[in-house]
Amino acid sequence: MIVLQAKPLSALLPVRSAAMEAAATAASPLSALFSRSPSSHLRSAPGFRLLALSLPLADELRAPSGSALLLPPRRFCVSARSSGDQIVARPSSEMRKNPFGGCDRGTGDEKLRALRELFSRPDVGIDAYIIPSQDAHQSEFIAECFMRRAYISGFTGSAGTAVVTKENAALWTDGRYFLQAEKQLSRDWILMRSGNHGVPTTSEWLNDVLAPGCRIGIDPFLFSSNAAEELKDEISKKDHELVFLYDYNLIDVIWGESRPKPPINPTRVHDINYAGVDVSSKLFSLRSELIEAGGSAIIISMLDEVAWLLNMRGNDVPNSPVFYSYLLVEMNRVKLFIDNTKITMEVKDHLTNAGVELRPYEGILPEIERLAASGAKLWLDPSSVNAAIVSIFKSACEKHNRKTRKGEKKEVVASIKNQDIQAEGPFGLYKVSPVTMAKAVKNRAEIEGMHNSHLRDAAALAEFWAWLEEEISKNIAYTEVEVADKLLEFRKKQPGFLDTSFDTISGYGANGAIIHYNPNSESCSVVGDKNLFLLDSGGQYVDGTTDITRTVHFGEPSLRQKECFTRVLQGHIAIDQAIFPEGTPGFVLDILARSPLWKIGLDYRHGTGHGVGAALNVHEGPQSISFRYGNMTALQKGMIVSNEPGYYEDNSFGIRIENLLIVKEVELPNYYGGIGYLGFEKLTFVPIQNKLVDLSLLSHAEINWLNDYHAQVWEKVSPMLDGGAREWLWNNTRPIPQD
Amino acid sequence: MIVLQAKPLSALLPVRSAAMEAAATAASPLSALFSRSPSSHLRSAPGFRLLALSLPLADELRAPSGSALLLPPRRFCVSARSSGDQIVARPSSEMRKNPFGGCDRGTGDEKLRALRELFSRPDVGIDAYIIPSQDAHQSEFIAECFMRRAYISGFTGSAGTAVVTKENAALWTDGRYFLQAEKQLSRDWILMRSGNHGVPTTSEWLNDVLAPGCRIGIDPFLFSSNAAEELKDEISKKDHELVFLYDYNLIDVIWGESRPKPPINPTRVHDINYAGVDVSSKLFSLRSELIEAGGSAIIISMLDEVAWLLNMRGNDVPNSPVFYSYLLVEMNRVKLFIDNTKITMEVKDHLTNAGVELRPYEGILPEIERLAASGAKLWLDPSSVNAAIVSIFKSACEKHNRKTRKGEKKEVVASIKNQDIQAEGPFGLYKVSPVTMAKAVKNRAEIEGMHNSHLRDAAALAEFWAWLEEEISKNIAYTEVEVADKLLEFRKKQPGFLDTSFDTISGYGANGAIIHYNPNSESCSVVGDKNLFLLDSGGQYVDGTTDITRTVHFGEPSLRQKECFTRVLQGHIAIDQAIFPEGTPGFVLDILARSPLWKIGLDYRHGTGHGVGAALNVHEGPQSISFRYGNMTALQKGMIVSNEPGYYEDNSFGIRIENLLIVKEVELPNYYGGIGYLGFEKLTFVPIQNKLVDLSLLSHAEINWLNDYHAQVWEKVSPMLDGGAREWLWNNTRPIPQD
Repeated sequence: MIVLQAKPLSALLPVRSAAMEAAATAASPLSALFSRSPSSHLRSAPGFRLLALSLPLADELRAPSGSALLLPPRRFCVSARSSGDQIVARPSSEMRKNPFGGCDRGTGDEKLRALRELFSRPDVGIDAYIIPSQDAHQSEFIAECFMRRAYISGFTGSAGTAVVTKENAALWTDGRYFLQAEKQLSRDWILMRSGNHGVPTTSEWLNDVLAPGCRIGIDPFLFSSNAAEELKDEISKKDHELVFLYDYNLIDVIWGESRPKPPINPTRVHDINYAGVDVSSKLFSLRSELIEAGGSAIIISMLDEVAWLLNMRGNDVPNSPVFYSYLLVEMNRVKLFIDNTKITMEVKDHLTNAGVELRPYEGILPEIERLAASGAKLWLDPSSVNAAIVSIFKSACEKHNRKTRKGEKKEVVASIKNQDIQAEGPFGLYKVSPVTMAKAVKNRAEIEGMHNSHLRDAAALAEFWAWLEEEISKNIAYTEVEVADKLLEFRKKQPGFLDTSFDTISGYGANGAIIHYNPNSESCSVVGDKNLFLLDSGGQYVDGTTDITRTVHFGEPSLRQKECFTRVLQGHIAIDQAIFPEGTPGFVLDILARSPLWKIGLDYRHGTGHGVGAALNVHEGPQSISFRYGNMTALQKGMIVSNEPGYYEDNSFGIRIENLLIVKEVELPNYYGGIGYLGFEKLTFVPIQNKLVDLSLLSHAEINWLNDYHAQVWEKVSPMLDGGAREWLWNNTRPIPQD
Repeated sequence: MIVLQAKPLSALLPVRSAAMEAAATAASPLSALFSRSPSSHLRSAPGFRLLALSLPLADELRAPSGSALLLPPRRFCVSARSSGDQIVARPSSEMRKNPFGGCDRGTGDEKLRALRELFSRPDVGIDAYIIPSQDAHQSEFIAECFMRRAYISGFTGSAGTAVVTKENAALWTDGRYFLQAEKQLSRDWILMRSGNHGVPTTSEWLNDVLAPGCRIGIDPFLFSSNAAEELKDEISKKDHELVFLYDYNLIDVIWGESRPKPPINPTRVHDINYAGVDVSSKLFSLRSELIEAGGSAIIISMLDEVAWLLNMRGNDVPNSPVFYSYLLVEMNRVKLFIDNTKITMEVKDHLTNAGVELRPYEGILPEIERLAASGAKLWLDPSSVNAAIVSIFKSACEKHNRKTRKGEKKEVVASIKNQDIQAEGPFGLYKVSPVTMAKAVKNRAEIEGMHNSHLRDAAALAEFWAWLEEEISKNIAYTEVEVADKLLEFRKKQPGFLDTSFDTISGYGANGAIIHYNPNSESCSVVGDKNLFLLDSGGQYVDGTTDITRTVHFGEPSLRQKECFTRVLQGHIAIDQAIFPEGTPGFVLDILARSPLWKIGLDYRHGTGHGVGAALNVHEGPQSISFRYGNMTALQKGMIVSNEPGYYEDNSFGIRIENLLIVKEVELPNYYGGIGYLGFEKLTFVPIQNKLVDLSLLSHAEINWLNDYHAQVWEKVSPMLDGGAREWLWNNTRPIPQD
């Protein structure tokens, strides 16, 4: 699955430190990889002007109206049970349904009126309210109960930010959702087309429409600390105050009874055969890093980090096997903040063995206050930990330190060294979560699981493609959504399959040119043999996560399509074959993928590769291969990246070829500089359609690559197939004759 | 001529802002391109840990002991005439002579004793003195009278910093000079091998050897403002004070009568046919930028910037056609601070026509104080303007503003906008000189001059290579220095030749593996037919500047040498053929040059390309092609860069292939993104030795490139040759048959 990018960094690089950028990139992989919405821009993705992080990480986020805001933690995540439908592996046809009544233009006005009425409540008192797409954990995929922006605006796209003032309501989204937003928004909403010339950011707009000195409210759980800092700074230019409304989310009040219950699906133990390292060892390493950094505790809030660290998986959101929770690791204790109903007996035993205690999910804020009171040196990643937690901790530290040392302020920044920490009082260590890198570098068991799951996934895909080719040759009409659903059926037949790893992008013809196209069962195209068909999909298995894109033509491709496809393939091959010294950041490789396209003046507006989790999130950081030159993370042995150059001709066709790769050490005749050299090993083994290749453009070496790849595909995948699928695989892995 | 680099940025990237880095890179091209010495590291080259610029650019550099340091400007640059020998185009054999008596170990001690005696003078009062290699203008090549570090230490290499305390004397230099320094330093000196493991920086060493609270003296003219700030910060960790000794340079006192006089060679007008744009137009553009930035005056101190802006050339230093001077541009006046004896009648008329007034060189500091007193908003580039000027200006501003506005402090940083400037008092605008970019983007006349001078240079080289091949075939022994001298003879025969553009690097066999090898006439090798010969040289012509490296073998190259040469050539071809969208920073291309080497685990420890001036400095910024990923300067149409990948096998051989390229717009079938795409046009037309190419490694396209290049060389250069040189060119431009 590709990752979106707006403009080359060179044009937009904001004034910010390399360290902040690295921190932002490393710790908030999703926000770094995706340009989802103005608010996610604001958060951390490097290379976008909107997200200049101009604040020192340790700057204090003051509660706008002082301690009055330090209210008791809310109970937004009710502990009452709900039926909690499993979200797993729903077919694409089902995913398209809109549970928010977005097109019901009659009710739009009602919701806004209700929201504005709340503005004047004595415990609220605001002039505007910002409703982002996020949950409290900066998740890419979120549970329905947290889709507040979709509820209030009616716009159901995955990216967007709603801002409601007393007079206006505006929704920001990016190019892929303009049409959908136009359809779904009622006339009470202004559509802000992010990225279009002259379109203001949310804060620019607020600074424009509000009289100076207004109070702008947010739910501080839904903003990372960095994002809230950034927002506060921006709106302070017009003397506005950022008001943290801890008590309740205003949208939830309006949503009322019809709001879905938070998910309470059972969690499960991620088998040690897949995890490779037990929880105790992971905790030991984490505590070593904690000691090294001079900390005494760390709060982990990214859901995939919690899941990875505890060798647990969950089922709270679609596509990612994670569960809503926070994890607090102290030197002698570990506390998991989670709804208790999600804990099966097996999980309970597993956690007990690892010395992990259970706490209610909503107990996190009081615990943070307790930590400060006990003098904790707490590591918080400000790019992922939400502003509610960071702000509460800072206020509590300040209160404590004022009491004990007459106001002497202790602020410790990322570069702190052990010997500098002599302070007895509490303080925060604001730096990238160490779990981010630990999780990115896969161990042997994780790699084996990724290999195995990819072969099963390849078998499912071979069956699927054989089926589709056959059906299309018989002139049977399937829509893009039906095709995606059929693919899911094939995947479901594979052992260990759990879920899709993201919403399938099934785009025929012009739809293939829409990056992150989401076919809608009511309006989508029929897949035919007159144009290219782009299919980007992935599966979650017990032992691994897959992500693959193939582009095919069931009829006769045009010369133009063949030329473009071949150049995309050349870029794909160049990345696949790259060899580079240790310490090379991923962005250095990016040009290898683009060069063949640049030669004829073509390009693509997304990154070339993103990190992938092992039986975890399909997008993870900190590494990437991209023209975001700020991400200095070096590619390391054991990291997984996607290799997915593409080309998109508006209103015509889209091309993308995607495999997943593992970074490995390579054996070479020389090791100049006395260091190791790295290369890639393929995880994905599904044929690339030879029909689309213009052989006259390929070098001998490139043709050899293609033939060699297909020979491997046949060797690895054919034993898992029979009948028509095996025949299809045979036909599609025959070598191209070399002259 | 290559540019040195130490380690990949990824390992060393310091915490600093992108803007500061861009500023440092853009404004101090030489320091950005070269890793010359610890002090130049300190200054600005991005990607080196030593030079983390951790200060806000506008931070005040306070005189350590207050206003007592604001002494009248010294008269170090005497106005008395001297005979001023022309330094132009001295043969390499002559360049090696050591005028500093470095090996005279008897006197080393004397100089140090004399220097230390000065430490206790009442107007000095310091515990240590730092003697960098720089002049007052951050020049790459400096006049002999400014070679104070060479004088005091006896070490004559181009890169080094001497530090003398009451007890110790230490000299820092880099790997290429370790042997030379060992020979030249007396036993009173400690050699600090920069880059070796565990070797401290100058400030680390000072912090180590001095008791806390010492006074460390510098000549503030010899440090850029940024470098002095950095140094001040570093030594403040041990509570040391940085003392600016304005009055006189301590080394000059010891040097006394034997110190060479500052050069007073005549300047000349750079013909408008070569300059392309007249002085008035350049000043108009500069003033527009000044107004845009909210300034009222700008001080230009880089010598090539003064020369470019005034369409003048000089002869004060070897290799660069510049003249010692400062330029002050105000809204209605322009003042050139220069020794009047350098001004011929022609130049005087030229300057009068352009409205440029003459002032004595040493009048700069009083003028800076006058500017502050008159309320000027002065633009100073802190990466190039020396600490003496910046510090005087800041102090004068403070004094003025304290007087007029009761101490209200006005500091304006780089991002200032016009409308923000309502201040009546003076202030400094600390940002990159706008001349840097204006100079880097060549106009049509400059490009034409570069083309023409390169063809004449190519003719000289063809004659030279034909001669050398003939001599070697006759077994006549020439040393590396003699060969370099002979090349100079051939160049001198070309019309418009003025000087070498840098000291010729003439390295046979193992010497070729020494980057920036400087052959010494007493000890250098004889060029033979048993190994590779690397020759990197360049010329200054009236109309252009050249820089070319060729590596040849006069006998039978080994398979290893052929493989390495071929991979270097593949990298060279990949850069030459690169096509990339507008806005692409040079570092993005760097991997294209390294990839063929990386494939077999080889690499080279220098950048791939540097900017080149038009009839000006052979190294200029702000652009580069390098693994210094911090230099975000986009390559632009009209910029010139070198293309010089290499490979160096220690104690064995060195390979480098260098052409100069102009960035040009390319015509393509598509312009994705609605932007222009850029590529390169060759300036250099000298054969590449086919004998060294392993054809089995080259693709058809690469062989075609080589054949096409040689066809162009023949077409362009053969009309300028006759006899043996023409025959040599014919033989060396024949196409390789394609199978």
